[in-house]
Amino acid sequence: MTLQSYKEIASKKRLERDLKFNKKWLILEEKLPGKEVKDVLTWPVKSGYLSEKEIAITESSLVEIAEKIKSKTWTAYDVASAYCHRASIAHQLVNCLSEVFFEEGLQQAKELDEYYEATGKLKGPMHGLPISLKDNLNVKGQATTIGFVGFAFEPEKFEYDSQLVATLRDMGAVFCFKTNVPVAMMMPESINFVYGNTDNPFNRSLTSGGSSGGECALGALLGSCYCGIGSDIGGSLRIPASLQNLFTLRPSSGRFTTYGARSGLPGLESVASVNGPISTRLENLEFYCKTVVNEGKPWLHDPKCLEVPWRTVELPEKLTFAVLKHDGVVKPYPGISRGLDIVVEQLKKDGHEIIEWEPLHHKRLGDIITEFFLSDGGIHCKDYANLTGEPFFPYMEMYNTTKEKGVSELWDLHAERTKLCKEYLDKWNATAKKTSSGKPIDAILLPVSAYSGVSNGKFNYVGYTSVFNALDWAAGTVPVTRVDKDIDVNDKDYVPVTDLDKLTYEEYVPEDVDGGAISVQIVCKKLQEEKVVELMKLVSKSINTFDYWKKQ
Amino acid sequence: MTLQSYKEIASKKRLERDLKFNKKWLILEEKLPGKEVKDVLTWPVKSGYLSEKEIAITESSLVEIAEKIKSKTWTAYDVASAYCHRASIAHQLVNCLSEVFFEEGLQQAKELDEYYEATGKLKGPMHGLPISLKDNLNVKGQATTIGFVGFAFEPEKFEYDSQLVATLRDMGAVFCFKTNVPVAMMMPESINFVYGNTDNPFNRSLTSGGSSGGECALGALLGSCYCGIGSDIGGSLRIPASLQNLFTLRPSSGRFTTYGARSGLPGLESVASVNGPISTRLENLEFYCKTVVNEGKPWLHDPKCLEVPWRTVELPEKLTFAVLKHDGVVKPYPGISRGLDIVVEQLKKDGHEIIEWEPLHHKRLGDIITEFFLSDGGIHCKDYANLTGEPFFPYMEMYNTTKEKGVSELWDLHAERTKLCKEYLDKWNATAKKTSSGKPIDAILLPVSAYSGVSNGKFNYVGYTSVFNALDWAAGTVPVTRVDKDIDVNDKDYVPVTDLDKLTYEEYVPEDVDGGAISVQIVCKKLQEEKVVELMKLVSKSINTFDYWKKQ
Repeated sequence: MTLQSYKEIASKKRLERDLKFNKKWLILEEKLPGKEVKDVLTWPVKSGYLSEKEIAITESSLVEIAEKIKSKTWTAYDVASAYCHRASIAHQLVNCLSEVFFEEGLQQAKELDEYYEATGKLKGPMHGLPISLKDNLNVKGQATTIGFVGFAFEPEKFEYDSQLVATLRDMGAVFCFKTNVPVAMMMPESINFVYGNTDNPFNRSLTSGGSSGGECALGALLGSCYCGIGSDIGGSLRIPASLQNLFTLRPSSGRFTTYGARSGLPGLESVASVNGPISTRLENLEFYCKTVVNEGKPWLHDPKCLEVPWRTVELPEKLTFAVLKHDGVVKPYPGISRGLDIVVEQLKKDGHEIIEWEPLHHKRLGDIITEFFLSDGGIHCKDYANLTGEPFFPYMEMYNTTKEKGVSELWDLHAERTKLCKEYLDKWNATAKKTSSGKPIDAILLPVSAYSGVSNGKFNYVGYTSVFNALDWAAGTVPVTRVDKDIDVNDKDYVPVTDLDKLTYEEYVPEDVDGGAISVQIVCKKLQEEKVVELMKLVSKSINTFDYWKKQ
Repeated sequence: MTLQSYKEIASKKRLERDLKFNKKWLILEEKLPGKEVKDVLTWPVKSGYLSEKEIAITESSLVEIAEKIKSKTWTAYDVASAYCHRASIAHQLVNCLSEVFFEEGLQQAKELDEYYEATGKLKGPMHGLPISLKDNLNVKGQATTIGFVGFAFEPEKFEYDSQLVATLRDMGAVFCFKTNVPVAMMMPESINFVYGNTDNPFNRSLTSGGSSGGECALGALLGSCYCGIGSDIGGSLRIPASLQNLFTLRPSSGRFTTYGARSGLPGLESVASVNGPISTRLENLEFYCKTVVNEGKPWLHDPKCLEVPWRTVELPEKLTFAVLKHDGVVKPYPGISRGLDIVVEQLKKDGHEIIEWEPLHHKRLGDIITEFFLSDGGIHCKDYANLTGEPFFPYMEMYNTTKEKGVSELWDLHAERTKLCKEYLDKWNATAKKTSSGKPIDAILLPVSAYSGVSNGKFNYVGYTSVFNALDWAAGTVPVTRVDKDIDVNDKDYVPVTDLDKLTYEEYVPEDVDGGAISVQIVCKKLQEEKVVELMKLVSKSINTFDYWKKQ
């Protein structure tokens, strides 16, 4: 084997990927919107490349598609084809796909149709439903780079599905591609030397976020049919979901199987990477959760999963939310604060109670999980980068320079973290003293990040999400509105409280993030995923963004 | 402060502890059975030191005691007093108590009586019920040595209860003492330089086991009222329970709160220390589980606990068990094999199905968790020993000599463990191909350890229990019978398969372990604690040891 530079290997991999697109769907460069067109959200539908049927399919929810397949209005092949076509357009707009295997997906759909035709039975509750996969999920016959050039052909084709993929496949789900991620999935924007950067379709000069950035950029362009799987170890589902106004659920560890996925930090257990659904539609998200947990019974196949079925939760009529507007480290951009205010005011109008939430231990918990990420001294990431000599991105430089911890120090950090988590839990209980019901709050409402859109290289703070990874609590995101450069201007009297706060405040330029997405985060305690989803429904109905994507 | 030797400090601590016994209950040396009396199980009742009422109380189950307190037949004080008296005798026979606080316990009982008298209400579901505590559980006002001389007065008195103790106290439980453990709770027999060794009341020349050895030696002497809390990270509940024919449940992590207990390996998370009940009566054990989980709601107070209530489980009429007779590393003593045969034959007679279980990855999983225990390089244990300069016991010498791991290596071990656990789970599922029902097995039946009693220094193998700590599966122990030196003789034709097997085989002398306890282990998967308890009931009823302790 001749030695190749990482650039050559990446180039070869990209070329091979590009050849897997269907030529008849590829749009000529000059027909695509130019770089000056920032907002491309409606382009896939309005450009005229999709047929009416393709639009009808991709603008249907998963449950609606399932019904149409069952009634033989559409075949699984029709659905997969429409799905691939629209994804192909999305990719040309924002560079969101990593591995592309339209052919295999269409073949899978064809076989499902034949099975249905021959037996009169559907393969399972996901029969013919296309599910989008983040790059870290291994798919039989495909590669998994997770952003490392050294993994481009190592292996060229995985011989097995990740457990979640296997479960979904058994249920009849169809897979046509995987989506782009940052190197090792450890940066808040989706860029790597294999596939480059994924742009944000709300404003293509902004980052799609990370690490589920390819997933979320795609999702915003894919319509009502979109349901994808991302992962989250410090905010990797919620950050890109919020930057693209998508619904997502970061579950506690043990609800969804993560077995057999590729990781940049394999064997890290001090903080668990979890995966969860992302969607334009809450009903897709809920359908996914119920089906994957109750039919998939992940505890039968993943030793880390808990035998806890997806349960029905009834919310009390009057709810109490604790709101955190500023975590004391970085004040959110004006649009984010405005979005939170919209939610709070509407919930108050609806008769719910709002109290304040103080950011107990947020900074320290965030710092501790960063220490966990780096505790192997970056050895695993360095090994993977060294496969080809690819350099480290600035965000990843700390993995290149950090010193490995001894296990003794790790134990001490664990013990500290447990103590802080206990105090956080006690604080939740203690809200009972502040609520009119005398019961603790139902949820915490807070920003997902400080950013209502941000350009590459400037996403400097993940503390609004990572604290809940440290706690392993359930959290969801709900779209609220978009940035208006004329409204969302900096408060001139604000005095930053930290250096990072000052930098963030000074870097904010309303014009740069115009049209950026504004979401809110809803947090309940560990294993309260069902309650988070109910609250996501309630909040999005209340602020009238339940059908956010249907209205686009 | 003058420098003191570890021996002087330990001596001072012992003296202070000894002064806390009630003089009127202390039995003169010459009235106690001599060392030649090995089996002292019936001595507390037969010796005549307990009143009829004290015997009636201590021979009642917790539920019976609760009823008698409610009906004012007995006061909580009566109960605590009888309990302390019998425990005092037990201690004189086998040296099982560490911290002694009879006075505080009696005062607690008195206050409960006054509360009941004044309000007509019981304080909670545990009102007046004495619960025994393993030494690692901190109790407000008491020390916690966990076998380290350096902790004898550090602190002299804890200022808080461990969460579990606080929960039980809130429910009205009464605490009168804590029980002896090995240094750091990391040896399979309960010996340390503070309080010495705890003997086995079945045969006082044998070890009580560890690390919940003080608990189990006491339990075997305390009658039907006994319910104690032990902990288990490699077998520490099951090993001593089996050596004293007690019922215990090693739960999966997250069912019972461990927050705020003292550990010899604080911050170790690669394998979780859990706690669970030990009892002479299954009804005590079940009452404890239901009450502590469903009334105590540990997930409200411990960030590591799971919101999973104690559930009702119905067993199928015909069950399938997989039996493991020999794990391929150390063949059990003849009595253990005989005990397992008794269970298997009876279950077959009852119409249940028995298949074989092969010990997939048992050795490697056991080795891996030992590596986890040692991964901090013994730094924490060395620090604690160095407080006074106490030497290391031979069993603990590896903590003194091991090298600290880097976190990178720890991650690789985690990844390996996860893979082995997945294969183990798949193996469980695959039993569906071997059972007549076409469903996977209901449980695994196997020895708790190789030993039907063993003398100090010879407990060399914990692989029959530690594999389930690595898997974090639920496991229980059920008493079967006792060693008969004339029946339980070595198979002369056996050819040992490992060096340790050879040593174990050669060291076996039937006369030495005559009268030793013989138990069996029942294992279900993660979070299947309720099923384990139901199966413990079924098996112990089937082999007629459900009332094992009432028959003594």
